[in-house]
Amino acid sequence: MERSSIHHRANDNYAYTTNAETLHIRLRTKKQDISYAGLIFGDPYISDKGQWQHEEKAMSISGSDNHYDYWHIYVKPPYRRIRYGFKVHSGDEEVIYTEKGFFNEPPNDPGSYFAIPYLHQNEVFGAPEWVKDTIWYQIFPERFANGNPNNDPEGAKPWGSEDPTVDNFFGGDFEGIIEHLDYLEELGINGIYFTPIFLAYSNHKYDTIDYREIDPQFGTKETLKTLIEECHKRNIRVMLDAVFNHSGYYFPPFQDLLEKGENSEYKDWFHPHGFPLKGGERPNYETFGFFESMPKLNTANPDVKKYLLEVSTYWIEEFDIDGWRLDVANEVDQPFWREFRKTVKDIKPDLYILGEIWHDSMPWLRGDQFDAVMNYPFTNHVFRLVASQTIHARQFIEEMTAVYQSYPTNVFDVMFNLLGSHDTPRIFTDCGEDVARAKLIHAILLTFKGSPCIYYGDEIGLTGGQDPGCRKCMVWEEEKQNSELLNEIKALILLRKEERLLANDGKFKFLDTTGNENIVAYQKYNDARSVVILINPTDVQQSFTLPFDLEGRSLTDLRTKETTKDSQFVIDGYQYKILAFNH
Amino acid sequence: MERSSIHHRANDNYAYTTNAETLHIRLRTKKQDISYAGLIFGDPYISDKGQWQHEEKAMSISGSDNHYDYWHIYVKPPYRRIRYGFKVHSGDEEVIYTEKGFFNEPPNDPGSYFAIPYLHQNEVFGAPEWVKDTIWYQIFPERFANGNPNNDPEGAKPWGSEDPTVDNFFGGDFEGIIEHLDYLEELGINGIYFTPIFLAYSNHKYDTIDYREIDPQFGTKETLKTLIEECHKRNIRVMLDAVFNHSGYYFPPFQDLLEKGENSEYKDWFHPHGFPLKGGERPNYETFGFFESMPKLNTANPDVKKYLLEVSTYWIEEFDIDGWRLDVANEVDQPFWREFRKTVKDIKPDLYILGEIWHDSMPWLRGDQFDAVMNYPFTNHVFRLVASQTIHARQFIEEMTAVYQSYPTNVFDVMFNLLGSHDTPRIFTDCGEDVARAKLIHAILLTFKGSPCIYYGDEIGLTGGQDPGCRKCMVWEEEKQNSELLNEIKALILLRKEERLLANDGKFKFLDTTGNENIVAYQKYNDARSVVILINPTDVQQSFTLPFDLEGRSLTDLRTKETTKDSQFVIDGYQYKILAFNH
Repeated sequence: MERSSIHHRANDNYAYTTNAETLHIRLRTKKQDISYAGLIFGDPYISDKGQWQHEEKAMSISGSDNHYDYWHIYVKPPYRRIRYGFKVHSGDEEVIYTEKGFFNEPPNDPGSYFAIPYLHQNEVFGAPEWVKDTIWYQIFPERFANGNPNNDPEGAKPWGSEDPTVDNFFGGDFEGIIEHLDYLEELGINGIYFTPIFLAYSNHKYDTIDYREIDPQFGTKETLKTLIEECHKRNIRVMLDAVFNHSGYYFPPFQDLLEKGENSEYKDWFHPHGFPLKGGERPNYETFGFFESMPKLNTANPDVKKYLLEVSTYWIEEFDIDGWRLDVANEVDQPFWREFRKTVKDIKPDLYILGEIWHDSMPWLRGDQFDAVMNYPFTNHVFRLVASQTIHARQFIEEMTAVYQSYPTNVFDVMFNLLGSHDTPRIFTDCGEDVARAKLIHAILLTFKGSPCIYYGDEIGLTGGQDPGCRKCMVWEEEKQNSELLNEIKALILLRKEERLLANDGKFKFLDTTGNENIVAYQKYNDARSVVILINPTDVQQSFTLPFDLEGRSLTDLRTKETTKDSQFVIDGYQYKILAFNH
Repeated sequence: MERSSIHHRANDNYAYTTNAETLHIRLRTKKQDISYAGLIFGDPYISDKGQWQHEEKAMSISGSDNHYDYWHIYVKPPYRRIRYGFKVHSGDEEVIYTEKGFFNEPPNDPGSYFAIPYLHQNEVFGAPEWVKDTIWYQIFPERFANGNPNNDPEGAKPWGSEDPTVDNFFGGDFEGIIEHLDYLEELGINGIYFTPIFLAYSNHKYDTIDYREIDPQFGTKETLKTLIEECHKRNIRVMLDAVFNHSGYYFPPFQDLLEKGENSEYKDWFHPHGFPLKGGERPNYETFGFFESMPKLNTANPDVKKYLLEVSTYWIEEFDIDGWRLDVANEVDQPFWREFRKTVKDIKPDLYILGEIWHDSMPWLRGDQFDAVMNYPFTNHVFRLVASQTIHARQFIEEMTAVYQSYPTNVFDVMFNLLGSHDTPRIFTDCGEDVARAKLIHAILLTFKGSPCIYYGDEIGLTGGQDPGCRKCMVWEEEKQNSELLNEIKALILLRKEERLLANDGKFKFLDTTGNENIVAYQKYNDARSVVILINPTDVQQSFTLPFDLEGRSLTDLRTKETTKDSQFVIDGYQYKILAFNH
C-alpha cells in the first residue's frame, strides 16, 4: 500500500454538502493500489460504555485519472454532525486512515477522526437552480447584428466587409440583437452572455469609460430595457460583463490622476508607483497585464468598492439582469468578491455570478464568492481531443476526471462550459473546418455536465483565428451559414431540453472503456433512468460494448428513436450516440 | 519517483502570503523520495519572442513527518503576480510538476502552471501583532480567588474545603482576581483568558442566561471595568469567552419557546424538531452534544445574528476587551463568523479572535474568520511525549511537523498553545506529579512557536483529573505551592520576554536528530541570530551533537549564561537546554 498517496482533507472537493442533510466524502488513493475503501463514521457525541459508536460503509470508485482512484460516498448524519475515517485495503494489508494518521484498529477517541462539525444550510454551495437548465449564447455586441445604422461609430465598415482588426468597427448594436431574438429562440438557447456594453473606447469595450452608461454605438438604456424585456418574454436570461479589475484609460478618475498626479483625489483608486504617470512597455502604475490603457483599480479602497457595488446593483435594480460575468475575476481581491456576492444576492438571490478564471478555482467556489467559473480546462481538453487531436480518448477521460474530482459535484454541475470565446480561436477553424468534428465537439458540450455556452456564430461555422480574428461579423445570409452544423446543434439543444438527464438533474460518471480505449463514454443517471453518451473522436469506425451491469437493457437511441437490446455498438469515425434506458 | 505522492494546490498551507510582497510555496513529496525540488516561476504576462520568461530557484526541506518531506521557498514577484511549477528529481529522473500534471520539459504556456493571480494586502492572514508576544493565563473565575464573600452564591463552600463537583460553588470573583493581579504580573503573563462571566446557571457559566449581564457571583459591571483597567495598567490583555453555539436553558428566549411552543416568537432562534419541547437523553431540539440544558442557537437567523453581534460589540465598546474566545466555534456556521469578524474588527482592528476547535482548522483560518484556534494537537503531542510517555522524541517531531505543515507559518505563529484547560486533566497530575516533567513540558510550551497559555494553578502544581476535578480552587498559601515549578516557569517567561527569538519573531525548524533520536531539538532563528532548544524527554542522560552547520559557534546557555564552543551536549533525564548564538 502506498500510504503517502492516500489523501483527504475535510473540506473543498474532499468533503462537501449538497444540502443540509447530505455530506459527500471523497478519498484519493494511488491508482489501482487500493482494493477496498470504507467510511468509518459516527456522531461525535454518541458512545456506549466508553466505546465510540461508529459504523462502516463501503465507498465506490467514482473516477480515475492518470495517477489516482477517487473513492466516493455520501452519508446523512442524523444529528448533522460527523466524525469519520477510512478503512483501506491493499492486498492483505488493512489500515485505518484518520486526521491523526494511520492506525491498525479504529481509534476509540472520536477526536482522532476527520470532522465535519455541523452541516449548515447556509454553507451549502448554492448556485441558482435555473443555471443547470441554461444553454448560454455569448454575444460580442459589436459583431452580432447592426439593427440601426444611425448609431454606428464613425468610420464603421460595412457589415462583414473586412476581417476584424484590433481597432475596426462594424456597428453591431442592441436593435440588431432584438431583431434576431427569434433566431436565438429557434436555436433553443435560453441565456445570453453579453461581453461589455458600457461606454468604452475600444471595439471590445473592456476599457470602460463609464460604468453607468451604455456605449451609444449599441443604443440607449431604453433599447437595452427593451432588449432585456424581449429576452425575458422568451425565457432567455441576460448576463452582463463586469470589468472591475481595471478601468479604461479614459475613465474620468484615471484621467484626473493623470492630470493632477499626487494631488488627485483619485490617487487611491489605482496603484500608482510614481508621478507623473508613465505608460509604455512597463507602466509605472499597476495595470491588467502591461496594458497602459487598462489601469488596475484598487478594489480594497472603500470608495472604489462603494462605487463598483453601486454599479453592480444599479443594473440589477434598473434593468433586471440575471447574471454578472466578472472579467479577470482572479486578480481582484477576494474580500471584494465576498461583499459583491452579499450585495447582489441581497437584492436578487438567484442572480448568477460567473468569474473569469482559467486555472484551478477552488478558493473562489466555496460558496462565499462565485457560483461558477468559465471552465477553460473543459475547453482545453475537448479541444485536444477533437480539434487538435493531441490526446486520445483515454487521456481525455483521465484529464477531465482530474478536473471533475477537483471540485465538489454541485460546483461542477453549474460550471460555465465553453468551446471558445472572444479570447480564443474559433472552434470551427480549430477543427480544420471539418463539419463532423465540429458537430462532435458540440455534442460533447451539450451532453456534458455543466452549463454550456455557444459563442455567437460557432453554430453556423463562423471561422477565425486568435483574437481579433475570432470576432468576425455574424453571417446572416442563410446560404453562407453551415446549415448541417446548425441543425445538429439545434437538435442537440432540443434533446438536452427534452431529456432531463442531459441537463444536470442526475449524477455523472465516465464508463470503463477497457476493451476500446478509443471511445469516450459517459453516463448521466438517477435512480430511475440513465443516458449513456458514446463519442468516437477518431476518424475510423470503433465498437464499444456496454459494461456488464448495463447489458440486456432496452435502449433507445435518443436521436434516431430506435430501440435495441444490443449492448455492442459500432460508431463511425467522428460520430456519437446518445442512448437512454430506464432502470 | 512516486508521482502520486507529490502534492501541491495553490492555496491554504501550500501557497500563502505573509505580506503583499511575499509568497510562500510548499510542496509535499514522499519521504526521502526526492533529491531536488526547484520552483519554476515567472510573471504570467512576460514573454519574449513567444517564450514565456521564467526562472528556477532551489527549494529546501522545511520539515519531514512520518510519510512526507515538505519543501519550501518564498518569492517576491515584482508585479505581485505569479505562475509557477516545480522541477523534481528522484535518482536520474527529472519531471516538471504543474497544475496540469507532469511534463518532461517546462511547458511554454503559463496557463499550464499553478497560479497566484495577485498578492493582495487584504488577503494576507492578519492576526494582531501583539499576540506573538503574549503569554496567556486562563482563569476559571469561580475558582481563582474569592475577594468578596458578600457576593458568594448561596451554599458556597469554604475556599478549597472540598473537591470540585459538577455543581458546587466556592465564590471566586473579580475582586479576588484584582487582589492577585500583582501575583500575575510577577509571574510575567500579559494576557488573561476568562472562561464565561455572563449570567448563567452552572459554576462553569457555559449555559448563559443573559449575554449582557455579569453573573452577580463574580461582581458587577463596575468591578469588571476596574478589573480590566487594572489589567491594562499592567499591560495585560483581557479575553472573554463567547458562548454563541448554544444558550443556557434559562435564556429567556428558550424559556419562551418552552412555554409557548409553536407560537413562540423565538421559535426560529433555536432548532426545534417538534412540540412540546422534550429534553432527556435525546432532546427533540438541537443541542450542544445531547445536553438538554444547552439548546443550539440558530445563528443563521438574522434576529439571532443581530442579537449576538450586538453582544460582541457591547463588551468591546463598553469594557475595552482585547479578545473573544469562541466556544464550540466549529459548530457555528461560517457565514456567521465572517460577519462576526467584520463587525468586531471594524470597531477594534487589533482584537484577537480565538476559536475553540480541536481538529484540523484550516477552513476557519483563511483570514476571513479567526486569528487562531486552541492548539489541542500541540497539547496532545506534548502530553504523549512528556506526560503519558507514549511517543518518543522522533514521533513527536514527526507529528508536530505534520501539524505545523498543515497551516501557513503566520497562522501557526499565533496558535493558542495550551497544556490543558478546564476541559482536560491537570498537566501536573498527568505528569504523575513529577516536578521535573512538569518543568520540562512548560519549557516546551514557553519556547515553542505559538502563543502559550498557562491554565491557572498549573504554575504551582495544582492537581486534578478530568473535569470537574481539574477545576480546584487556586491555592494561595505559599507553603502549599510548588515553588520549584513556579520559579522555573517564571524564569522561562522572563527568558521568552528577553529573547525575541523565543517569542515569535523568527523562523522555526526542528533539527535533524539522527544520531540521537531520543532528543527533541528545534531552532528559532532569523538572519542574525539563533536559539536552539534541546529537550530530553527520557529519564536517562542523553547526548546531542549540533548539526555540522551550527558547529564551532560561541553558544550561550540562556539559563546559566555560560558560553561554550562545544557542539556536543549532555542532557540529564527530563532536562533541557536553551542555547543562543549570533550568526
